Amino acid sequence: MIGIDEDRAIADLHRLARFGKCGTGVDRLALTDADIAAREWLRGRMAEAGLDASIDRLGTVYGRAPNAKASVLLGSHTDTVPRGGWLDGALGVIFALETARAWRAAHPSAAVGVDAISFTDEEGTFHACLGSQAFCGDVAEADLAPARNAAGESLLARLAELELSGRAAARLDPRRHRAYLEAHIEQGPRLINDGVDIGIVTGIVGVRRHRVRFEGQADHAGTTPMAMRRDASFAMFRFATEVAARFRAVGTAESVWNFGVVSVKPGAANVVANEAEVVTEYRDLSPAVIDRMEAALLDLLRERDGEGGVAVSANMIGAIAPTAMDERLIAKFAAAAEGEKASFRRMQSGAGHDAMILGRRIPAAMMFVPSIGGRSHDISEDTDEADIRRGLRVFARAVEMTLEALGPDGDGAL
Amino acid sequence: MIGIDEDRAIADLHRLARFGKCGTGVDRLALTDADIAAREWLRGRMAEAGLDASIDRLGTVYGRAPNAKASVLLGSHTDTVPRGGWLDGALGVIFALETARAWRAAHPSAAVGVDAISFTDEEGTFHACLGSQAFCGDVAEADLAPARNAAGESLLARLAELELSGRAAARLDPRRHRAYLEAHIEQGPRLINDGVDIGIVTGIVGVRRHRVRFEGQADHAGTTPMAMRRDASFAMFRFATEVAARFRAVGTAESVWNFGVVSVKPGAANVVANEAEVVTEYRDLSPAVIDRMEAALLDLLRERDGEGGVAVSANMIGAIAPTAMDERLIAKFAAAAEGEKASFRRMQSGAGHDAMILGRRIPAAMMFVPSIGGRSHDISEDTDEADIRRGLRVFARAVEMTLEALGPDGDGAL
Repeated sequence: MIGIDEDRAIADLHRLARFGKCGTGVDRLALTDADIAAREWLRGRMAEAGLDASIDRLGTVYGRAPNAKASVLLGSHTDTVPRGGWLDGALGVIFALETARAWRAAHPSAAVGVDAISFTDEEGTFHACLGSQAFCGDVAEADLAPARNAAGESLLARLAELELSGRAAARLDPRRHRAYLEAHIEQGPRLINDGVDIGIVTGIVGVRRHRVRFEGQADHAGTTPMAMRRDASFAMFRFATEVAARFRAVGTAESVWNFGVVSVKPGAANVVANEAEVVTEYRDLSPAVIDRMEAALLDLLRERDGEGGVAVSANMIGAIAPTAMDERLIAKFAAAAEGEKASFRRMQSGAGHDAMILGRRIPAAMMFVPSIGGRSHDISEDTDEADIRRGLRVFARAVEMTLEALGPDGDGAL
Repeated sequence: MIGIDEDRAIADLHRLARFGKCGTGVDRLALTDADIAAREWLRGRMAEAGLDASIDRLGTVYGRAPNAKASVLLGSHTDTVPRGGWLDGALGVIFALETARAWRAAHPSAAVGVDAISFTDEEGTFHACLGSQAFCGDVAEADLAPARNAAGESLLARLAELELSGRAAARLDPRRHRAYLEAHIEQGPRLINDGVDIGIVTGIVGVRRHRVRFEGQADHAGTTPMAMRRDASFAMFRFATEVAARFRAVGTAESVWNFGVVSVKPGAANVVANEAEVVTEYRDLSPAVIDRMEAALLDLLRERDGEGGVAVSANMIGAIAPTAMDERLIAKFAAAAEGEKASFRRMQSGAGHDAMILGRRIPAAMMFVPSIGGRSHDISEDTDEADIRRGLRVFARAVEMTLEALGPDGDGAL
């Protein structure tokens, strides 16, 4: 059994939370001074653990087990959303650090090592999952140039300012990196509500977004009879109400959807709206279900287009395919949970994670620990310390089982 | 018959449209240089017609028939909305000017005269119906101090800059002003669609506005199961859809409502909305119907409050009581239309007008001419010249019938 030190890991988690501390949470947007300070600290901790540790040209901190010809890669991200939680990303990175350092201490000259990584900008301050996408070779240089944060700051300018631009890029090496394991907080209420200790992620849902647009005519809201109006806002209300009913009909119990961005123009109480827009986002683990949801949306659009003099149109503004996690690694998490007498549940991840990017290239898996109140992306996010400790034990045990499967030369089957 | 000169009136309308000309319309916001230039010109035309004409401390142009101890007051407004139409307000003012000058020319020493007026800021650049409200004594000095335009300019500062502040106030004198008549464009499509020449306004609808607010909880739109969400935007969609159905059930064929201002926060595609607002405006001529609509809204609010974890609340942000027009004056418009072989229809006004303010103090009535395409508050607003000429003849004839009813000493019953 890898000799992890739970207290040391908990202390590191609290130390990391001091960078960008914001009340009970942290505000550590990618490539801010706080984020870079945290990454410098993390690089130091990895080096102390005996890893070849460096920060790459985009800010990803990569700690490579020296001597090893093969490795299990562990990680997550240390950047956060504005006023975010102290564990989102950080938990997985510290689990990775602790597991890598315990393995390194116990097996300093093993041919199969444990690498640890904190990807840059998972939260999308400049570009969502930037670090893991770049690591996997999924980001072209041309994609980087237009990337800007909410304040309009350019990614490339910021990297130059931080003197990172000239550095080497950390890159996935499928011959070396035999598996990727990530721990994360659930960011939802299922585990906590049902008193389950560990969530084992079967897959990360796919997401599609359509901007649905309604075009009517602006008219005086006092003098234009109801029957003569071409009311874009009311058409949108009716559309969204009905599309939800159809999503419910064609989706599964796990499907989710959201209408988070809404606008109505010209936006005067006494003027009939000539323009309305609603961003309709929907997610499911099954590509077939997502396709059915899209078909339901587009069918309704065709039915309603022109009704009441309002033109309805939609364009897809985002599509991420579902990513299945590796069944062999899932089985290791389950066995590890049993070994630790932790209750567990197989579940999908409704949120995107770096494991989604890695999982398209190498065998990958994720586990969740419970989130108190299901809160995340907020300073109120938290997890009971006993759940963190139990999670670390399960995680380290699953890593150990993965290393065992790979064998002393790293050429075993998972 | 009053000897009106249609060509002269049409020429004056076109002359007035040159002040603040903006494509096919005009941009003549209250108290801008263009508005003041138009008012100076109008004052001059009134003076040429033999009226005691002046611009008052707020910009209202008042042309008083000298010698007369009683009068019929005619008017409307010469200010416009941004990029507004050339006839909205202007038509009624030029009809007033032409009728007053024709009467003055024919009966220079009559004891009963025709006064003409262009109220300031009907459109609410600083304060809606400012001129007519001040004329009727409905505006306290304390109401003027905070009045500002969209650019944040103070009304009082602008009046001082224009050197109007020290002037006398034009004021309603119920002993003198025996009736108020106003002509206006319809600003809606009913007359034009049905080929009717003249609309005779039976009353001006009342308006109520509620800001309806939905408070839920912001959650990750991927990780929070549908059943655990407190989704403010979806609650708003369902509410507005249902409130429209209930308004239809309790309202009349003439009732109208609108959802012109909508907002959803925090406004991210992947975050369940914790806050949504919709301004719900509704209008009817009958106070009882408006009360029923309000009750329907508040009943639904009570039914829905708390449903799906979303709190629903509303506060009234505006209420204008309906104003009935004077039946005796309505009858004169009808008789005048018959005399001119013009088809006419009794109809409500869905928009507010200066006649709404005057009608609370003295007998008042309004007539409409058709609006091409029902357009208004836009530079595309227009009316066929034949309809303008016919409208002027009907208007002047109705004024003459009113003067006849008042008798040579102005003490007859309407």
